[in-house]
Amino acid sequence: MKDSYVVGLDFGSDSVRALVVNTATGEELASGVSYYKRWMEGKYSQPAINQFRHHPQDYLDSMTEAVTIALGECGQEVREKVVGIGVDTTGSTPCAVNKEGVALALLDEYKENPNAMFILWKDHTAVKEAAEINDHARSWGGEDYTKYEGGVYSSEWFWAKILHILREDEEIREAAFSWVELCDWIPAVLTGITDPLTMKRSRCAAGHKAMWHEDWGGLPAEEFLVGLDPLLAGLRERLYEKTYTSDEKAGSLTAEWAEKFGLPEGIAVAVGAFDAHMGAVGAGIEEKTIVKIMGTSTCDIMIAPYEVIDNKLISGICGQVDGSVMPGVVGLEAGQSAFGDVYAWFRNVLSWPLESILPEMDLDEELKEKIAGEMKDKIFIKLTEEAEKLSLEETGLLALDWLNGRRTPFADQTLKGALIGLKLGTTAPAIFRALVEATAFGARAINDQFINQGVAIEQVIATGGISQKNDFVMQVTADVLNMPVKVAASEQTCALGAGIFAAVAAGIYKTIEEAIEKMATGYSKTYNPDPERAREYQKLYEKYLQLGADLTAHLQNI
Amino acid sequence: MKDSYVVGLDFGSDSVRALVVNTATGEELASGVSYYKRWMEGKYSQPAINQFRHHPQDYLDSMTEAVTIALGECGQEVREKVVGIGVDTTGSTPCAVNKEGVALALLDEYKENPNAMFILWKDHTAVKEAAEINDHARSWGGEDYTKYEGGVYSSEWFWAKILHILREDEEIREAAFSWVELCDWIPAVLTGITDPLTMKRSRCAAGHKAMWHEDWGGLPAEEFLVGLDPLLAGLRERLYEKTYTSDEKAGSLTAEWAEKFGLPEGIAVAVGAFDAHMGAVGAGIEEKTIVKIMGTSTCDIMIAPYEVIDNKLISGICGQVDGSVMPGVVGLEAGQSAFGDVYAWFRNVLSWPLESILPEMDLDEELKEKIAGEMKDKIFIKLTEEAEKLSLEETGLLALDWLNGRRTPFADQTLKGALIGLKLGTTAPAIFRALVEATAFGARAINDQFINQGVAIEQVIATGGISQKNDFVMQVTADVLNMPVKVAASEQTCALGAGIFAAVAAGIYKTIEEAIEKMATGYSKTYNPDPERAREYQKLYEKYLQLGADLTAHLQNI
Repeated sequence: MKDSYVVGLDFGSDSVRALVVNTATGEELASGVSYYKRWMEGKYSQPAINQFRHHPQDYLDSMTEAVTIALGECGQEVREKVVGIGVDTTGSTPCAVNKEGVALALLDEYKENPNAMFILWKDHTAVKEAAEINDHARSWGGEDYTKYEGGVYSSEWFWAKILHILREDEEIREAAFSWVELCDWIPAVLTGITDPLTMKRSRCAAGHKAMWHEDWGGLPAEEFLVGLDPLLAGLRERLYEKTYTSDEKAGSLTAEWAEKFGLPEGIAVAVGAFDAHMGAVGAGIEEKTIVKIMGTSTCDIMIAPYEVIDNKLISGICGQVDGSVMPGVVGLEAGQSAFGDVYAWFRNVLSWPLESILPEMDLDEELKEKIAGEMKDKIFIKLTEEAEKLSLEETGLLALDWLNGRRTPFADQTLKGALIGLKLGTTAPAIFRALVEATAFGARAINDQFINQGVAIEQVIATGGISQKNDFVMQVTADVLNMPVKVAASEQTCALGAGIFAAVAAGIYKTIEEAIEKMATGYSKTYNPDPERAREYQKLYEKYLQLGADLTAHLQNI
Repeated sequence: MKDSYVVGLDFGSDSVRALVVNTATGEELASGVSYYKRWMEGKYSQPAINQFRHHPQDYLDSMTEAVTIALGECGQEVREKVVGIGVDTTGSTPCAVNKEGVALALLDEYKENPNAMFILWKDHTAVKEAAEINDHARSWGGEDYTKYEGGVYSSEWFWAKILHILREDEEIREAAFSWVELCDWIPAVLTGITDPLTMKRSRCAAGHKAMWHEDWGGLPAEEFLVGLDPLLAGLRERLYEKTYTSDEKAGSLTAEWAEKFGLPEGIAVAVGAFDAHMGAVGAGIEEKTIVKIMGTSTCDIMIAPYEVIDNKLISGICGQVDGSVMPGVVGLEAGQSAFGDVYAWFRNVLSWPLESILPEMDLDEELKEKIAGEMKDKIFIKLTEEAEKLSLEETGLLALDWLNGRRTPFADQTLKGALIGLKLGTTAPAIFRALVEATAFGARAINDQFINQGVAIEQVIATGGISQKNDFVMQVTADVLNMPVKVAASEQTCALGAGIFAAVAAGIYKTIEEAIEKMATGYSKTYNPDPERAREYQKLYEKYLQLGADLTAHLQNI
């Protein structure tokens, strides 16, 4: 067991990262990042209509490059001792495949058709289909299949996206034999499994996004799907019945990929899962712990033993899936639709004069670009600096953080943000502080939702960009949660988590718990709540809750 | 009556304006402006504690300069034919005077003491005293003297300010024989009336700000005042019993001032009044007409015959005073605590990066100033340009305009502003549009308050800076009010109104109505409501009212 290594592959929205990890210590030996070439050129997406597509060739090219970079930093002696590969991806990010498991856009005839590509998690072209799924689930007379997914099916998810493409694109409808999630497809590619019916499908993706549940024998019944739209007829049996947790091997690395990567042939490739779930493992998740992946939005992950869940539905969260985080416990997912994005929004508002007035001024073009660039870069830093100095009374504002709707508790995409208490003296830093407080209150509401339903929270672990970069936001979050917030030491918890799964799939450890104990690398920092501020924030949080309740109808109808 | 002239003097917050007006036509021959020197140097005021004081010498110096400039533009033949002077001022702007009517700061021993100066309308140092007056008026067992002033006594007003100084400054307490409003004092100075007991006091100031009413024999009873604070004992009889409307002569111009100004000795000086009231006259007020003086805040003036008022209290407005606008009808006052100031606030927020980040950048100092200056100047223009293009749906926001509290309807200084409906795509121009709509909704709420109490409104006349400068704001206001909004042709309606009163006091006309008919100069522009937008705004206005009601407790308690 000494000196063996795994590679964690983390497929993000813009790039893939490969991380080489020591299985004994979790030490991160080397890492490589490769941005998706076609994506970065803006191809195949139309932001104006929220269409976001990834070309499958981007994934293959970037994966190869990222692994090559990472392994290039290691010696031959490390490469030889790599025993497994783990894969996490964004999701739900589905794609149509043919009978041979080929993502359609890899075929010459569809290579430029966005509907033949992976539909990125944040693609919202299927809003109408999601609404129909929700209506149908309530009214068709059978099981409400959305019930383990928080009771509201999203336009970001598997079935809505598939139905949208089937309706939209006759050519793809006829060419699509089956559909895969990105986290199913990458392990299949690496292990040479081409038959969509035998690919090992991710429990995490299936349970959280495809309404798969053992209670009803897997995917929703054919009758339900045909009732939704006859175009779905027959698809169910071309998808999957069984699903797998990521401690299992999806298969063995093919000779072809072993050669491309410069790795031993036949090493284990673990079943894939979603990034936040593996990130929670990489951050050292345990019971009574909420792991918050804090970035533009948050994904909040918990695990609970069966006896805590006790066959109950945990209401108001995004999903509860047996084994979605790790086998043997129920994985629970929640999250805020906007977190860092709320701050980015305010930066955009403050940047408006730089975008709209500065370019029209009679100045040297290069100078204008320099000024706009530098000022935009400094807005966050300066806002933070100034906001930190304000007392709660000086701020005098209260905000609602639902600028991208509310995911948890109780998903409602019709909600919006609000800012109250404005005075003629209200400053930009005061608004920023109120926005930071609002996102922290949103986090607190999620904690309370879990706790009130019997899922205890005794500690908070944070990971993701915000947790690494913004002391002020983290301190406010700790004060509002009134709980210490530990920041995971690894800056790549998703890729590290993928590595942990790879180590178990390769047989280095028997259980994920054991692997976490050895490989999760602890915390770089702890934010302890200030008792005085925590008391003040308790009061303000109660006002936030009341404000949210009183404004709900206004925000839905505006 | 042919070829006679009057001089209107308009004492504002920063400057005094003198306007030479033809009494036959209202033609504005010449005008002069002089900024208060000590005030512009920032002397005697402390914005941080809302202390704003004007040195009486500033008034005398600037008045002389403004009149000299204005008359300098006219020939001797005009100067000889000036028959009267009218005076309007800010208010409530009181000052302590000695037995000889000298404003105390004109005496050597008090010349640097801010408490011996005029306390500008916007000075809020007497918040505590105003609260005591309100409590006392409700609880002392007699008449509620605030009832004709909207039922809420303000820290901006006469008694609160006097009491504050009496408590604060023993020296001034002992030196103060009586107190004057600026609009009482200027005519007294010009006419050489030195005895505070015989100065002709303004009905407008007394009725709206000093709780003077004929019903209770003038000022509040001695018992009430002493109950409020024994320091007030004896002051009542050193103030006034009678008050005068501005169609009356305060007296005749003294030889000394006639020489300073270069005007005939002995011409009529009219009794003074507040700027907004004279502005309404200058804008051509008539029955069933609301005159809106639109600037940083608004002052909204109506007149109503006694039979319409019918001894009723018009609730929720700022005051109802027999003769305050013109004799023979009841003058009604309402207003928004912030109007243009709401937009200025948003400009300040958007300017924050220019104030906080740009100065720290490594660029030539002059260049930085140039960039900051030009960009700040263009923010309004560009915001307006962009906001105008947005449809109501695109904006998707709703705001409350109470950033400086709410004056009318139903004064509540504990209220604040709000902005709801924020999305990640919400832009600065959309926020600006929502703020403009909110100020228009605030105007609409005032109209409705009058109408619902039987004071009909059939037309809107606008005057003041915003009405002259911002087409977009004016069009939105017309659409929201669903009524044509006429803009007074004169850009100096307050000074013109003062001239109209001077013409009547000088005997050129018998009544103000007659003088208005000849001298008010009509409208430069009419904004007609767009029926489609008016319908849409009707719905949004109802949402505004509901939002305001539902947020009131939140805003009071934040």
